[in-house]
Amino acid sequence: MQVIDTVAGFRKALDQERAAGRSVGLVPTMGFLHDGHASLMRRAAAECDVVAVTVFVNPLQFGANEDLDSYPRDLDGDVARAAANGATYVFAPTTAEMYPTPMLTSVRVGAVSEPLEGHARPGHFDGVATVVAKLFAIAGTCRAYFGEKDFQQLAVVRRMAADLSLPVDVIGCPTVREPDGLAMSSRNAYLTAEERAVAPTLRQALGAGRRLIEETGERDPAAVRAAMASVINAEPRFELDYAEVVDPGDLSTPAVLAGEVRLLVAARLGRARLIDNISATADPDTTGASR
Amino acid sequence: MQVIDTVAGFRKALDQERAAGRSVGLVPTMGFLHDGHASLMRRAAAECDVVAVTVFVNPLQFGANEDLDSYPRDLDGDVARAAANGATYVFAPTTAEMYPTPMLTSVRVGAVSEPLEGHARPGHFDGVATVVAKLFAIAGTCRAYFGEKDFQQLAVVRRMAADLSLPVDVIGCPTVREPDGLAMSSRNAYLTAEERAVAPTLRQALGAGRRLIEETGERDPAAVRAAMASVINAEPRFELDYAEVVDPGDLSTPAVLAGEVRLLVAARLGRARLIDNISATADPDTTGASR
Repeated sequence: MQVIDTVAGFRKALDQERAAGRSVGLVPTMGFLHDGHASLMRRAAAECDVVAVTVFVNPLQFGANEDLDSYPRDLDGDVARAAANGATYVFAPTTAEMYPTPMLTSVRVGAVSEPLEGHARPGHFDGVATVVAKLFAIAGTCRAYFGEKDFQQLAVVRRMAADLSLPVDVIGCPTVREPDGLAMSSRNAYLTAEERAVAPTLRQALGAGRRLIEETGERDPAAVRAAMASVINAEPRFELDYAEVVDPGDLSTPAVLAGEVRLLVAARLGRARLIDNISATADPDTTGASR
Repeated sequence: MQVIDTVAGFRKALDQERAAGRSVGLVPTMGFLHDGHASLMRRAAAECDVVAVTVFVNPLQFGANEDLDSYPRDLDGDVARAAANGATYVFAPTTAEMYPTPMLTSVRVGAVSEPLEGHARPGHFDGVATVVAKLFAIAGTCRAYFGEKDFQQLAVVRRMAADLSLPVDVIGCPTVREPDGLAMSSRNAYLTAEERAVAPTLRQALGAGRRLIEETGERDPAAVRAAMASVINAEPRFELDYAEVVDPGDLSTPAVLAGEVRLLVAARLGRARLIDNISATADPDTTGASR
């Protein structure tokens, strides 16, 4: 496995792989790789001839009061983890290599970027869309793997790649969870033992929302939101940010739930801000099961 | 020569050319091709193995009260002109082919986009940067040729391609002029005979500004602006928009002129809004020649 730290070197390596007839799988990350990233790499390795993992903590996607400086980093560990999960290349540029001059260009995805995380973290998705557009431009024709844990990010990246006709197939992959249900995240490293113990409450709140839709037959988004919020608010260590149910395509809030929907929650827990989401199906057969 | 109207077809054609070892020159245009475009195509043909001309009147870069509907179009003429000047492909997609779903993604280049045309035409350069980013993503690795007549557009595109690491060398080419000095432009078609007769006044104003810098030794931007404006305002058919002298790199206005600068003018003449620009050198040796 090869570690590359220049834009030109990474582009050249992937161009040569494609010229030799090999397909490229790209796994863009901010490093501190965990089993969730490992599952993306293994999926990429199963579907592509070579796998390139990018490790870059992108300053553009952090707000002024967010955790850019404290975001966990471990390049040696990341390289070992990438090698162990089938990666061919790790691209780990410095910030100066990625942004050698002031970054004047920004990429923005309207509508999909605006609710939820976009509302809670102004400018965050502009930073994501910009760095991913740049990584896609460097990497060239490939399949790119993103986790569903960052569901809205996946929607933003997918729309950006389609709108700009970038030669990249964006693949969403299921969230990987700890045995107690907590979604894997580099930011879980911020949790104290006490916080870690109650962290699965987020997943439990999502489950309560899903049961309300699929078993009780609830079709009012406000009732589902309230049910999820009450589970999170019952644990005083959490500070709830949002609990929402949206259309999985454009992330808009339907007036009445119908078909496949996405439940999403965000909450602060100690130093960490955690997010999670699951799907649910508002099947016509279960409508009004309780009525 | 081959005319292509699908994104997938255009990408595939250029991918195949590169796979066969041939270099690609790209000439993005809005059609109604004139001798200025012809010079771009000939330059591309001299430097690249295949030349692809794109013809697309991009709605994103027109303001609500601008000339999108009346913008001159002549695809048959464009195809003939492209063939006569060494083009291998003409890519002429419909708006529905370029934007099959609502275009939620926009590309913005800060600073360079803001003064001059950016101030006069809000959103114009966002539309330009977005469509050019998309055309570059479709075309892939290439050299792309733009005229210096749209000097700020060239600066915006160059910065966008660099910031996003697109695999495109952006080449600026000299403005092509009519014998009387008028810069070639598709929008010259809007001029009546009387307006056409006075249109070279724009180039004359730029020349007056340059002489003031290079011969008189003027170093005060305000004096140069005033000199250019007075030439244009002396012709009552013109409605002056701006007459400016800026740093050619970032288009900022220097306090004192030094080294290479760019003079730019914009004015309305009948139905047309015309722009033009030239370079000038504020050489240390001529400073204060008149003082």
